[in-house]
Amino acid sequence: MKVVRSIILGLASILLLSTGLAQAQILTDEAAAVASERGLSESDILAALKTYMPSGELDDYVMFSSGGQSGQVLVIGLPSMRLLKVIGVFSPESWQGWGYGTDAQEILASGSDNGVELTWGDTHHPALSETAGDYDGQYLFINDKANARVGVIDLRDFETKQIVKNPVANNDHGGAYVTPDTEWVIEGAQYSVPTSGTYASIDEYNEEYQGMVTFWKFNREQGRIDYDASFAMELPPYWQDIADAGKLVSDGWVFLNSINSERYTGGFEEGKSPFEVGASQNEFDYLHIINLDKASELVAAGRAETVNGFKVLPLETSAAEGVLFFAPEPKSPHGVDVTPDGKFIVVAGKLSPTVTAYSFQKIQDAIAKGTSEQDPYGIPILAFEDVVEAQVEIGLGPLHTQFDNQGYGYTSLFLESAVARWSLDGSSGEEPWTVVTKTPVNYNVGHITAAEGDTVSPDGNYLVSLNKWSVDRFVNVGPLLPQDLQLLDISKSGEQMQVLYDMPMGLAEPHYAQIIKADKLNPWQVYPETGWNPTTQAVDPIAAMPGEERIERDGDTVHIWMTAVRSRFNPERIEVKKGDRVVWHVTNIERAVDNVHGLALPDYNINLSLEPGEAQTFEFIADKEGVFTYYCSEFCSALHLEMAGYLMVSP
Amino acid sequence: MKVVRSIILGLASILLLSTGLAQAQILTDEAAAVASERGLSESDILAALKTYMPSGELDDYVMFSSGGQSGQVLVIGLPSMRLLKVIGVFSPESWQGWGYGTDAQEILASGSDNGVELTWGDTHHPALSETAGDYDGQYLFINDKANARVGVIDLRDFETKQIVKNPVANNDHGGAYVTPDTEWVIEGAQYSVPTSGTYASIDEYNEEYQGMVTFWKFNREQGRIDYDASFAMELPPYWQDIADAGKLVSDGWVFLNSINSERYTGGFEEGKSPFEVGASQNEFDYLHIINLDKASELVAAGRAETVNGFKVLPLETSAAEGVLFFAPEPKSPHGVDVTPDGKFIVVAGKLSPTVTAYSFQKIQDAIAKGTSEQDPYGIPILAFEDVVEAQVEIGLGPLHTQFDNQGYGYTSLFLESAVARWSLDGSSGEEPWTVVTKTPVNYNVGHITAAEGDTVSPDGNYLVSLNKWSVDRFVNVGPLLPQDLQLLDISKSGEQMQVLYDMPMGLAEPHYAQIIKADKLNPWQVYPETGWNPTTQAVDPIAAMPGEERIERDGDTVHIWMTAVRSRFNPERIEVKKGDRVVWHVTNIERAVDNVHGLALPDYNINLSLEPGEAQTFEFIADKEGVFTYYCSEFCSALHLEMAGYLMVSP
Repeated sequence: MKVVRSIILGLASILLLSTGLAQAQILTDEAAAVASERGLSESDILAALKTYMPSGELDDYVMFSSGGQSGQVLVIGLPSMRLLKVIGVFSPESWQGWGYGTDAQEILASGSDNGVELTWGDTHHPALSETAGDYDGQYLFINDKANARVGVIDLRDFETKQIVKNPVANNDHGGAYVTPDTEWVIEGAQYSVPTSGTYASIDEYNEEYQGMVTFWKFNREQGRIDYDASFAMELPPYWQDIADAGKLVSDGWVFLNSINSERYTGGFEEGKSPFEVGASQNEFDYLHIINLDKASELVAAGRAETVNGFKVLPLETSAAEGVLFFAPEPKSPHGVDVTPDGKFIVVAGKLSPTVTAYSFQKIQDAIAKGTSEQDPYGIPILAFEDVVEAQVEIGLGPLHTQFDNQGYGYTSLFLESAVARWSLDGSSGEEPWTVVTKTPVNYNVGHITAAEGDTVSPDGNYLVSLNKWSVDRFVNVGPLLPQDLQLLDISKSGEQMQVLYDMPMGLAEPHYAQIIKADKLNPWQVYPETGWNPTTQAVDPIAAMPGEERIERDGDTVHIWMTAVRSRFNPERIEVKKGDRVVWHVTNIERAVDNVHGLALPDYNINLSLEPGEAQTFEFIADKEGVFTYYCSEFCSALHLEMAGYLMVSP
Repeated sequence: MKVVRSIILGLASILLLSTGLAQAQILTDEAAAVASERGLSESDILAALKTYMPSGELDDYVMFSSGGQSGQVLVIGLPSMRLLKVIGVFSPESWQGWGYGTDAQEILASGSDNGVELTWGDTHHPALSETAGDYDGQYLFINDKANARVGVIDLRDFETKQIVKNPVANNDHGGAYVTPDTEWVIEGAQYSVPTSGTYASIDEYNEEYQGMVTFWKFNREQGRIDYDASFAMELPPYWQDIADAGKLVSDGWVFLNSINSERYTGGFEEGKSPFEVGASQNEFDYLHIINLDKASELVAAGRAETVNGFKVLPLETSAAEGVLFFAPEPKSPHGVDVTPDGKFIVVAGKLSPTVTAYSFQKIQDAIAKGTSEQDPYGIPILAFEDVVEAQVEIGLGPLHTQFDNQGYGYTSLFLESAVARWSLDGSSGEEPWTVVTKTPVNYNVGHITAAEGDTVSPDGNYLVSLNKWSVDRFVNVGPLLPQDLQLLDISKSGEQMQVLYDMPMGLAEPHYAQIIKADKLNPWQVYPETGWNPTTQAVDPIAAMPGEERIERDGDTVHIWMTAVRSRFNPERIEVKKGDRVVWHVTNIERAVDNVHGLALPDYNINLSLEPGEAQTFEFIADKEGVFTYYCSEFCSALHLEMAGYLMVSP
């Protein structure tokens, strides 16, 4: 049979070759049998071949996704849709040693001002740092909606370096977004509260509650947000939602949409409409158009007030100085996304089955022309017809828009569970501002993200649909189901837009994500030098160094200088007295890639992850008598279990 | 061209059909182009087709993996190798509401007896509950090596229901394992310490430090470990390592191996050998052979002593009553695994390039014959040659062994980075006790796990190699690299054993895993009734119920009875005074699958995940003045953002 098959296949090959179809291959008997047994269709086989990654082959793209209420950032390879890493940001991550004894613990707890330690966050929108409007692979920013914080991740080691707490907001949703050179990180609050942090009756909502957007100044050299150089802008007490920075022609401007321009305050329990009804009455809410450059100049000129020690530009000032304008946007809108050329601002209608494209040039013209319309707080309202370029009838529940390199926009349709592809102003070759096709997704898509889709030069190729419900897509794992991240092939034009892969997300609820070319990332594989402090990103002068291991007592304090190397700690025996303060320095002195050691200390809730070269210092009071075994918690060698030592606490 | 191609393909099809190769398929032009462009080999294509899961297709198997020092359990579908869920066990998981306000917080903190709240664990060995030696899909047990704890997960809702702290051990490694009907859950300590929890000088190691194995009695009806019906056995101060329960003919016995029979105590800092050398001198350590049935009878007969309030069978009693025997095992061994028929106990040599198969019958014969050899603590040592059935020269660094349905054993080789397939006593048709083939893995494999591989009837088909290092397998994501879980096809006999898939594991260090047929799991999709308390697995009498929402003040305590349904909370406004105690009951009254709501309360570190029907109660002191917005933290509908309310704390 084998001989016959060879002849046949040979013949087929010759025939195929002779007709120029040299690339056509015939599946092996076994592969064909598998495809048949599994019932794989032609498009399944195509999707399998596009996404399968043989051992050692590297993905083309890396997606940075928020983990939603997990407080993390997820790092996912495309097209394989494999989870490469989880980065601890607002929540502790014991396997990374994030929040279990080291400096990281202080970063993690930033913003805990209520006698309650904050140990989670609700991450929504990751933003890769940009240079000239293109992702540069250096930093990643992410917001915590629950507690109004922003985290800064250094992409040299994929670790969180800073968390800033917003002093004039209790929550945020409109962050993080960056300006094209990462000068500013945008954080818009969502639910209006009295921003001074004090109590005010809900009956005084219109007067005593405020909206807010904050512009964090980023110091790229230091890799930190500069708190003192940052400022916020007071806004009316609508619920500001999502933001985007202008780019190219619209650089220097920021666009922020809003819901609940009704200023509805709830009260379903008293027979009133619930928020979902009361905040959805108006046909139009307000697109906030912000002249960030001018706002920044005013703050520099001393026009900000101080609230909770933070610079805040008053609403009257913004209104009077031409910093803030409104344009009507239908209806309880959600996403606002600036096109790659910076010319249009696309707002998805949510309760309106449209996307509305505002022209930046028309906005400028309308501002120049002036308007007599104002909202109750004196903010000028530009006329809808003056600033809109086009409106696309897109479908039910439009939420977010992304862009590719073919002149298409893509909008998620929550209620239709679909991704719509539509044409922008004509560069796609299709009729402008028209829906081209829709691909169903499973189910209830929130955000979508395209490869380099927020830059001035999107890649196209792939789009990920971040679906909120999976329902029947995966094996039943109980009442809390995974989300479903679906990879779509958007490389072809027109109606061709295939779902390639369903990735269950069973550890988080990804909210938004950005996709960068993998070759733009160049992280360290080991820390540059032995004794490296990841917080300062420099050699730590107090790091334990090889040859200098020791234990020193200084009154009631015991200092330990320890090194870790396959497969031993030095020292292996530590004697202290009950009540001693123990200050423990430990350095992983390995230099080989992947040669990580852990240091677990039972009963004291301490676990470190020490990457090659990394030095850490932690301390605790040895307040429990007994014998405790510290050990390496990262499987490092065949004698990994023998990498341990005794901490003996005598009475 | 399309017409020509159709003719050619048609011709090829006819030719193939005519030779009986009906299943052979020709790739579409596009698929062939993709395969060619991506450089996929025939075996790559085969692997892609075997592992690719079209949208909505369900995996055949579910793997429960420890998360290592992440403190979690990972749920992974096979053959797609997709992460379906992370279960919070010893570490908080904010997206699941695990440890952020509810009853779960108390379970999570179990064992925190040092003034330090334990918020992580080092999970090692998950054990699925068994009935007659087969996985039954009801419960999962997992140990915490760092703090000597065992967690119990209910597979009706995939949530942790109990964590028990071992009162006579500071750490464990030899757990969790279950007996064939899940009567007992085994937890072996690792590093010997004074088990009373008091201090003793390391100089008194031989006398004052003890080894320990604990047998937790499981009450299947209650779904809980019965603390009072459980007991421990004192052991010599070797470092007991891994355990396995006997099955079928060896049911009622437990096998536990050990390292450091040298009783080495370290001291590298003083010029002594490090542990890795000092604990690796002996050619043989001791396989511990435990008659669990007899031990249990002795405890029932009052022969246990009480240590820290817990029943402990003294070493002398075990020695005198024939409960504990030793057999020599080469050399600093690691895994001990009982064959599916229960006849052999396979020990992997770690520093010996062998696996040693002990015969349970020979052990019984040797015990009956008697021995005059004893260890320093009076434990009888059976002669190696009396109890060994066979020794297989397996390769370098053998760690763990699994079994299939073809009569093969599989052993991980850490130093060779390979999985060895070898023949058992002849049922495979190969020469008995011989290596058949090896497949390289990338890199440094620890545990391996085969489908239903710990049961009396393994499935074969798949084996997962849990590799500790990935080095160059994936896109560089910084100095802390993912692990690499490789899926191997073991369905064929002889030398055929192909790596099908590389799954990066970037959120944990999986230690061990078990694989169960997916159709054995039957979890709830929604909770059985509205008002369900997941801790008690019953309707909660204090649950907030629809129609009974209200706010009641009782002195300084404010009780809230709240329901959540798309897309509103009831009530939406809550007024309290600073310093009030707030007791908040909330019920998700949805009945549709996947209809989860969250409840996030900024600044108070509270986040709940409320699955359909679930009721929770949490409380806090409202000790901060101001206005806080609680909101739904699980994207539930198009008006999800409007699902919010105001908590107003007046001075």
